[in-house]
Amino acid sequence: MRVSVLGYGTVGVGVCEMLEKAEGLELRKVLVRPGKADKPFKVTSIEEICADPETDAVVEVMGGVEPAFSFVSAALRAGKHAVTSNKALVAAHGPELARLAAEKGVGFLFSAACGGAVPFLHNLALAAESDRIVSVGGILNGTTNFMLDAMQRRGMDYADALKEAQSLGYAEADPTADVSGLDALRKIMLGCAVAYDKLPCEGFSLEGIESVTADDVQHFRAKGLVLRLLVSGGLNERGTLYAFVQPCLLPASSPEASVLKNFNMAKYRGENAGDILFIGQGAGRYPTASAVLRDLSDIAHGRREMMKSSCVRVAADNSAVEKRYYVRLDAALSDCLPFAEKEIDGALARGVTKAIPVTEMHAKAKMLRERGAAVFFAAMEE
Amino acid sequence: MRVSVLGYGTVGVGVCEMLEKAEGLELRKVLVRPGKADKPFKVTSIEEICADPETDAVVEVMGGVEPAFSFVSAALRAGKHAVTSNKALVAAHGPELARLAAEKGVGFLFSAACGGAVPFLHNLALAAESDRIVSVGGILNGTTNFMLDAMQRRGMDYADALKEAQSLGYAEADPTADVSGLDALRKIMLGCAVAYDKLPCEGFSLEGIESVTADDVQHFRAKGLVLRLLVSGGLNERGTLYAFVQPCLLPASSPEASVLKNFNMAKYRGENAGDILFIGQGAGRYPTASAVLRDLSDIAHGRREMMKSSCVRVAADNSAVEKRYYVRLDAALSDCLPFAEKEIDGALARGVTKAIPVTEMHAKAKMLRERGAAVFFAAMEE
Repeated sequence: MRVSVLGYGTVGVGVCEMLEKAEGLELRKVLVRPGKADKPFKVTSIEEICADPETDAVVEVMGGVEPAFSFVSAALRAGKHAVTSNKALVAAHGPELARLAAEKGVGFLFSAACGGAVPFLHNLALAAESDRIVSVGGILNGTTNFMLDAMQRRGMDYADALKEAQSLGYAEADPTADVSGLDALRKIMLGCAVAYDKLPCEGFSLEGIESVTADDVQHFRAKGLVLRLLVSGGLNERGTLYAFVQPCLLPASSPEASVLKNFNMAKYRGENAGDILFIGQGAGRYPTASAVLRDLSDIAHGRREMMKSSCVRVAADNSAVEKRYYVRLDAALSDCLPFAEKEIDGALARGVTKAIPVTEMHAKAKMLRERGAAVFFAAMEE
Repeated sequence: MRVSVLGYGTVGVGVCEMLEKAEGLELRKVLVRPGKADKPFKVTSIEEICADPETDAVVEVMGGVEPAFSFVSAALRAGKHAVTSNKALVAAHGPELARLAAEKGVGFLFSAACGGAVPFLHNLALAAESDRIVSVGGILNGTTNFMLDAMQRRGMDYADALKEAQSLGYAEADPTADVSGLDALRKIMLGCAVAYDKLPCEGFSLEGIESVTADDVQHFRAKGLVLRLLVSGGLNERGTLYAFVQPCLLPASSPEASVLKNFNMAKYRGENAGDILFIGQGAGRYPTASAVLRDLSDIAHGRREMMKSSCVRVAADNSAVEKRYYVRLDAALSDCLPFAEKEIDGALARGVTKAIPVTEMHAKAKMLRERGAAVFFAAMEE
């Protein structure tokens, strides 16, 4: 299969290198920015790639919604298979691209958009064909996992952990998308779309790690608990979809607690298969490129669909899932939450609530913060 | 795709139930023992299935090498795809079956033979197409993992842990294949064949868990170490293959240590992808059946090969891999091993050796046991 690559950044260069070594795959052209076409195989117009009869597939690794959406659409319309690592693109326009690919009878896969080298979406799509997927989730942001692990095992504070993540290239100069949980949320959107044929697009409950302090982590350590930022998606009994991102506290013996540094862990629960977990590098040039190459290999073998053309957009409904929450907040405000147990330590209260809906906890935290309170919360995952 | 099932035991019944619910798959016939054909779809002769023009694929879940080998060969010769959960069959005759399938242009997959529901071989085969596989391995026997976990976390002794595994159906009445490491060895044979196109058939280093005592595990716990039975396979620098099974000691924070109860953890290291780990149920009716259905789905999508028809048998060479070993043995014999540090406690010596070849440790233990000594050893996995 002959492949042209859209984008020549970190991942694009890795894809090109791997294509040159892979059997059965061949690099054709690379789309670069105007003025950057310093080799004959580099081109600056998407039309040139779409019109190339020797390009069978495109790989989009530019990032961002536009012009990626226009370019991938054009390639699919021209009858090229498309593989992308771009979660923002798929979260925004996945259903349209899946329909276009199905109409044209070509493949559209995006393994690398969720979990990097971790072969999650591929296996989830395969499992969904013959098993009922009960839930999907895991640790899908390596930046925040690196920070939480550094705080947990090395006692670092939030600011230093973030600085180290930035210096290692794990976090952007503006880390908002990672630490707010938005990046992880986009990935669970894709997981739900693959597992349930429904792309949740609103109604999310989203809490990142911005409120956690070194002092909080000290408290968890003393209790043998480990903090992780987990994503969760699944079907409610009433048939609606839940999808949320929030910090969670887990026993030190849990698989989640063993996910160190910037690794990712994705999982699904199949009615028949039980819990299946996947752990690996969620980002980086070669891990991400390796996922792109696996998708190309899948397309070459005839597996062409990850999101079905029937996939519809829905609102998430997180009111039916209940959790007990660990909460730290100003002692004076602690009556606002239904604590099952709490300790007052000077001006701070720390405790664990009764089981309450996910939506209730997120709404209460928002309300308290609007009143100027500092609040940290994490779901107890027993 | 229309499927006939050879065998109607625990897994066979699960496969039949799942086939009846799966989209795109249909149950045709089930091969049962003479006298057991109490329903019209149950037949007692393999010829009847081979001659059935409406059977596209067979699923072999009988276990054992014969008659499974004759039956699967006959089905492939008749132009049927074949999926099996039978590791003894594939370890003994995989290359012949792969060649036969390639000649006939049909599929031959065996995901369920290694790791049950854990989608290891499928992903390994896919990864091997575009990445260089550096090593394969993991925890591939749920029975021994259950026992070691019970000893580790619940302080049970070996005999009680075995009894509980048997009462839960995790261990056979004769547990030798599990506790000796033979079952895990067969699985790493398959992993090597898929990753390297070479099926190791002799020259193994094999040590199970039969020598471990509750007292040993107490010592590891005190040091924050967790004992697991690990399989390892990979390419030596000289191009030969290593493949061994042995107890290993790991930090409590390692992913291996988080694999509890009867779960399996399989992993590979790709030159580009890095470490990719898969965790799930390695046995049981529905987990195993779910792996069979995934393979059928793969064949329906055109992916037909897991072991290549070019796969050759080789001898394993474990002399080039060195490990430091924790060893417990009679104090009087402790000079037989190159300890870097040791403690004498009454009649027992416990210590850690310098790095020595895997073959040397296994040979020394054999020699010492032939002299009547009680020896336990485990590789230090730092």
